[in-house]
Amino acid sequence: MKIARYTHNDEITYGVLDGDDLVALRTDPLFGGFETTGRRVPLDEVRLLSPIIPRSKVVGIGKNYADHAAEMNSEVPAEPIMFFVPNTAVIGPDDPIVLPPWDDVVHHEAELAVVISRPCKDVPIERAKEVIFGYTVGNDVSARTAQRGDTTWARGKGFDTSCPLGPFLVIPESDAEFDPTNAAVRCYVDGELRQDGNTKDMIFSIPELISYVTSVCSLLPGDVILTGTPAGVGPIEHGQRVECEIEGIGELTNLVIRR
Amino acid sequence: MKIARYTHNDEITYGVLDGDDLVALRTDPLFGGFETTGRRVPLDEVRLLSPIIPRSKVVGIGKNYADHAAEMNSEVPAEPIMFFVPNTAVIGPDDPIVLPPWDDVVHHEAELAVVISRPCKDVPIERAKEVIFGYTVGNDVSARTAQRGDTTWARGKGFDTSCPLGPFLVIPESDAEFDPTNAAVRCYVDGELRQDGNTKDMIFSIPELISYVTSVCSLLPGDVILTGTPAGVGPIEHGQRVECEIEGIGELTNLVIRR
Repeated sequence: MKIARYTHNDEITYGVLDGDDLVALRTDPLFGGFETTGRRVPLDEVRLLSPIIPRSKVVGIGKNYADHAAEMNSEVPAEPIMFFVPNTAVIGPDDPIVLPPWDDVVHHEAELAVVISRPCKDVPIERAKEVIFGYTVGNDVSARTAQRGDTTWARGKGFDTSCPLGPFLVIPESDAEFDPTNAAVRCYVDGELRQDGNTKDMIFSIPELISYVTSVCSLLPGDVILTGTPAGVGPIEHGQRVECEIEGIGELTNLVIRR
Repeated sequence: MKIARYTHNDEITYGVLDGDDLVALRTDPLFGGFETTGRRVPLDEVRLLSPIIPRSKVVGIGKNYADHAAEMNSEVPAEPIMFFVPNTAVIGPDDPIVLPPWDDVVHHEAELAVVISRPCKDVPIERAKEVIFGYTVGNDVSARTAQRGDTTWARGKGFDTSCPLGPFLVIPESDAEFDPTNAAVRCYVDGELRQDGNTKDMIFSIPELISYVTSVCSLLPGDVILTGTPAGVGPIEHGQRVECEIEGIGELTNLVIRR
């Protein structure tokens, strides 16, 4: 099942994708389930929004693919590297990524994003699946000069528009529909393939990440974990078009602008 | 004016301190103003809560007092060191600080906390006052082994219960009531004075911090900036009582426990 959040006639609605249509849901499925109203609207007549706005936070994970750690001249980490991205950084499909004026080197990072279903803390690895609501595509846009030069990653990873999410939230009913442990992750810049990885190459699995993150902090419904990016990151510039794609979810497209 | 958020007869209420009483407000003053209902309750009959729950984030500032930078063997930073603390870390007066099982060295850090009044981005220094709602006391509880050993400060600064706030939100009508540029900041552990600084010794002023932080990310109503801690930080242990005090605001007391 693919869920979208969208505006149609100035109203924010959740809907289930059915062919080329969206069938409206009565309410936010995170809290109210999947009852539909029967209203249908063609996908190409709506404006898609980020399928989720975290109530609390996005938790990013650094260097979770060995080939990306290598291209960053880093060791493979012994424990997950976690960082917080505030919900003010989240944008949706087709919203512009606004390059921050204080950094000249901003990179794309296509990632699988995991959306949390319920309040949770200290989740054991073997029960991690119980707290997953679904999956979407994320772009962990990174201001590299700040990330490398600052003491923390807050500025480099947390600026406004640095966290595009979308286009759909996938709630897989089977591995055939979407298998988070074996999905291609790609990024195109102006149509050129820049990243071409697969979630099977994560160093720490999704259950391991959920267990680690919740050993530190509670996660709330709608919180997001960005699971790290494969190799191929590189600069994005004013006027370019970035497409992050995950097989089985869809393509998240954003234009890059410098004001 | 001092505002409290509290439970009385299982109801969460905001109120204005009037002598030893709280006079109930109709609604959250951040969004609904200061109209009272006329109901009064003695302060000692309520349970105080954190006066604010950030809608989006707490932004911490590292090493903003020269004497603390020195005790941490750090240079005085050229730019503010910012980090994000999720709202899941916030607790109120008298809530326990739960030491994380993965770190043996956890420190108190008494700090002035600034609460933001309105959505804002790119605030010039000279207009920063316009986005301040009020002030409270914060304790930026820090798991030092993780803070020093991890790539980021997320784990060391963002664990559950790491951000006590309270007891009151002060909205000063004059500098005589509360002057954020000249207020004593103290911390006592089991009654022993550990930190004894003054906000006049901040390296970056509150307007400079607001301007810097909003050059990175939007702040939303209820977001909090922790403005850094003076010298004297040190370990807290199971069973100890930590009191962070700011002259003109009050004392924020929490018991420390290890589960």
